[in-house]
Amino acid sequence: MTRPLRRPGLARWLADSNDVTQMFLAAGQIPDLINMAGGLPDPETWPVSDLSRLATRAITEHSGEALAYGPIEGLAGLRDAIAARFSAPGLCLGRENVLITTGGMQALDLIGKVLIDQGGLIAAQSPAYLGALDAWKPRSPTYRPMRVEAADFDPAAALRDAQFGYVVPNFSNPTGRLVGVEDRRAFVAAAEATGTWLVEDDPYGTLYYDGAPLPRMLTLSGRDEPVYDGPIIYLGTLSKELAPGFRIGWVIAAPDMIRALVSAKQGSDMCTSGLCQRIAQDAFATGLTERILPQVLGLYRSRRDALCAAMNRHLDGLFSWEIPTGGMFVWATALNPALDTDVLLREALAHKVCVTPSSVFDPEGRDRRSIRINFTLNAPDKLEEGARRLAQATRAALGAA
Amino acid sequence: MTRPLRRPGLARWLADSNDVTQMFLAAGQIPDLINMAGGLPDPETWPVSDLSRLATRAITEHSGEALAYGPIEGLAGLRDAIAARFSAPGLCLGRENVLITTGGMQALDLIGKVLIDQGGLIAAQSPAYLGALDAWKPRSPTYRPMRVEAADFDPAAALRDAQFGYVVPNFSNPTGRLVGVEDRRAFVAAAEATGTWLVEDDPYGTLYYDGAPLPRMLTLSGRDEPVYDGPIIYLGTLSKELAPGFRIGWVIAAPDMIRALVSAKQGSDMCTSGLCQRIAQDAFATGLTERILPQVLGLYRSRRDALCAAMNRHLDGLFSWEIPTGGMFVWATALNPALDTDVLLREALAHKVCVTPSSVFDPEGRDRRSIRINFTLNAPDKLEEGARRLAQATRAALGAA
Repeated sequence: MTRPLRRPGLARWLADSNDVTQMFLAAGQIPDLINMAGGLPDPETWPVSDLSRLATRAITEHSGEALAYGPIEGLAGLRDAIAARFSAPGLCLGRENVLITTGGMQALDLIGKVLIDQGGLIAAQSPAYLGALDAWKPRSPTYRPMRVEAADFDPAAALRDAQFGYVVPNFSNPTGRLVGVEDRRAFVAAAEATGTWLVEDDPYGTLYYDGAPLPRMLTLSGRDEPVYDGPIIYLGTLSKELAPGFRIGWVIAAPDMIRALVSAKQGSDMCTSGLCQRIAQDAFATGLTERILPQVLGLYRSRRDALCAAMNRHLDGLFSWEIPTGGMFVWATALNPALDTDVLLREALAHKVCVTPSSVFDPEGRDRRSIRINFTLNAPDKLEEGARRLAQATRAALGAA
Repeated sequence: MTRPLRRPGLARWLADSNDVTQMFLAAGQIPDLINMAGGLPDPETWPVSDLSRLATRAITEHSGEALAYGPIEGLAGLRDAIAARFSAPGLCLGRENVLITTGGMQALDLIGKVLIDQGGLIAAQSPAYLGALDAWKPRSPTYRPMRVEAADFDPAAALRDAQFGYVVPNFSNPTGRLVGVEDRRAFVAAAEATGTWLVEDDPYGTLYYDGAPLPRMLTLSGRDEPVYDGPIIYLGTLSKELAPGFRIGWVIAAPDMIRALVSAKQGSDMCTSGLCQRIAQDAFATGLTERILPQVLGLYRSRRDALCAAMNRHLDGLFSWEIPTGGMFVWATALNPALDTDVLLREALAHKVCVTPSSVFDPEGRDRRSIRINFTLNAPDKLEEGARRLAQATRAALGAA
């Protein structure tokens, strides 16, 4: 017996999809593929036996926190630990400034729920993190692109009348660029002047390979208040510092904004896993995240160097790029304007290498000149072979163009 | 230096709040409060040492699944285990029918994202689960209440032109009522006839204290297809079977619906914690959930009996209620129509007891005749004292009315 085919229509935002995602999914089935598309950490950096000890302790010694429904806003001890870690001279953070989220992605979803009605305006650094675009799609926003590195960029004009601005100042995804201190100050001043919220998304804030970390916009916006009440909505995550499988992220913001986000989180997943939160809390308390950081930085720095050297050997004359000083990605722009990087992706998969084309980082899908290449997941020999295959694929795509 | 007060407005749905939630939050601060408001399991039912072993094994032997980003739709092994568990004669479920969610609540959020544009119609069993109303609020739906137990209830008329129907057939939250087999069949037939999706939310499906479980609407809608493609969207959760702190839930539905939900989950939290998923998978594989069930049932059955006996002693003449044959709640309706149960909540808190007033289960907040009383969290002596305090509070509220 066949089923009736008429069913209620899906929500309108679902019609707005692209076939690049489908290509990525299909890529998972290609044997011997060198995947430089994702933003994945190397599993070798995970402190497995430490984590196993923390999990045992969480369940046996803190079962009331690990196994129960917890407060929507997160475990008090973990919120306190994050408040303490991000407090700085001039920036007093308390528990009421902190919300625990189910990974960094959930923070983006909650911000969309709280600040966007259909058509609401987001001023987003361009090109923009694909995951943020995904998170906000169900709210049907409009976008004002911010080209932060343009000589005539005016943050106040960019933020005016927007519901919020969205910036990844440390090694932006996808470009790997660092927003400089003066630009950060200008953003904070513009947020204060316009009254607009400014989302500082910072998944890569610990991954500085050269030079000292720049001050966060959150820190720059501190005004010595007893409890922070400024315009920055700061997003952090444990995924890059420890492991993604815990799905632990956090928001630091003014108490009013945290309360609104808590209302949204209540109907999203009620609370984040107590087990994962308790492991995160103890990882901070025992210094585990700091202890593994030097090894992580050493590994990823050497891989960045290996990728850039391989690109020099294979992609010189085809792309231009800057060497990123941190993060997980190199952003490469085709020298020949005839190259469509959506077409290149198809060729790359045929050559058993995967990178991310720029169209997915453009809310309108029009930017087809660049690619994002990840260097954290693969060993140097794979990065070398990946760059070689990418050069072949590029020549094939140009031949077909 | 003071901050500017003008900030962008919040999304409109946030204006639609009630002060009952505020009262619940404040209740957490009252010493010696007897809390019969929530739907919490008793921590004594958690198999702590088994869970600790499973967590250790997940991290040390399956770190690639436990600690990494996983597939959006969930770990293949866990999806297979759920497909196998819910398959039945006439109902063939495969991995493509299953999505893992971050608790049962996330499934509701995803369904709203996928099926509701502003004003979209939901036909919801009335009174309705508060969490579902919370989950759908950001999508601004409209509601058609379904009074399933009414003599003239017509499921096809109720489902017609709705985006989906929403039913909790096993011990509905809040009423504790069981939807009978014939009504289940009628719902399935109505969903087939109208083409409407029908959400079967089943958090309490294992908590039958008297008699054998009734067939699920999912099972009744099976047609011996090679892969299920029917109208039921079935929701399950580990929170009542094992522990809420893992935040593991699942959706079983036609592959097209699963794919749409996966698109929504991608932008919601990317994936559910691999650690928690792997623990769930091994809890099913080792029979842990089945092993602890008899003890859970014994404990909760005795508490249901204790609460109902205490209600007979203290609340007879004030409320009417039915003895639920499963689940976590007794639903009690005031005999005196002058009693406003929102007012009763305030009096109850003054008497150090907390229950849930019916207004929160009504999308329009108008039903103020009933209360939901939980019996799973508290020991019999607390249930007795809670019923006594509730009687005092009711008399006080009626005196004030």
